[in-house]
Amino acid sequence: MQQRRWAWEDMAPGAVIRLGPRLVPADEIVEFAAEFDPQPFHLDEEAGRRSILGGLSASGWHSCAMMMRMMCDAFLLDSTSQGAPGVDHVNWRKPVLAGDTLTGTVTVIDRRRSKSRPDLGFVTSVVDLRNQRGETVLELKNTGMFLLRDPEAGHDA
Amino acid sequence: MQQRRWAWEDMAPGAVIRLGPRLVPADEIVEFAAEFDPQPFHLDEEAGRRSILGGLSASGWHSCAMMMRMMCDAFLLDSTSQGAPGVDHVNWRKPVLAGDTLTGTVTVIDRRRSKSRPDLGFVTSVVDLRNQRGETVLELKNTGMFLLRDPEAGHDA
Repeated sequence: MQQRRWAWEDMAPGAVIRLGPRLVPADEIVEFAAEFDPQPFHLDEEAGRRSILGGLSASGWHSCAMMMRMMCDAFLLDSTSQGAPGVDHVNWRKPVLAGDTLTGTVTVIDRRRSKSRPDLGFVTSVVDLRNQRGETVLELKNTGMFLLRDPEAGHDA
Repeated sequence: MQQRRWAWEDMAPGAVIRLGPRLVPADEIVEFAAEFDPQPFHLDEEAGRRSILGGLSASGWHSCAMMMRMMCDAFLLDSTSQGAPGVDHVNWRKPVLAGDTLTGTVTVIDRRRSKSRPDLGFVTSVVDLRNQRGETVLELKNTGMFLLRDPEAGHDA
């Protein structure tokens, strides 16, 4: 395998990776919603204003998808990522509104090697996505699988 | 508000709502991945075959987005849904592969009224999405907010 910047060994607890910035245009909110989540407050500014969300707001799954792209661009595409078995929780803390600019951090909190595959390990991290006012809009804890760069070396975690 | 089929009152614990079927074509997998999760195993059949996933497989977030659309079509668009504060967990149990057909169930497991807004309540449910072989590919627990049809009536839950 070609050399990658990020392998399991590089993701020690405490490591922080910065995400974004990413602008959220109204037309992208509507386009995603029309395909996957056509509830009125994700499709129409006026319906959004009348709802709890307070404006044209991105589907929570759109926020997750945008976060994923920000993670891909920040490190996953230059990593030994092998996908992910799941997410511990997803909190949509505040609406992501048309015109918002998102930034974020991925903070590694835990890792372990696979018991069945010596070349593979799991990395657990917390993702915190914020808007331009510094308010957390999305927070989640996820676990990804990464190949080791050097499975033969001794690793204590 | 116009009359809706599904209000908070209709979602008692034990209620089951059926989702799908929905076909997952290869081009939709690639289109979503190109925009939100351009890892090789979500973009290319051969890269998918060489990976743990075993074939061209949908991004986990694409699976969540497809599930959301299935939920919209099954009941949410004819409900008093006001969005959702988050998801307890998401398990991507098996890869969703090109050509799969997804069906699923939403099972209500708990509900409560909002303490601050008498016209609003929370509904917690488990979603189980399966492929054409009956294997669970996606399982998650989520909580949605719904308006009550009749906030003045007595409700014990």
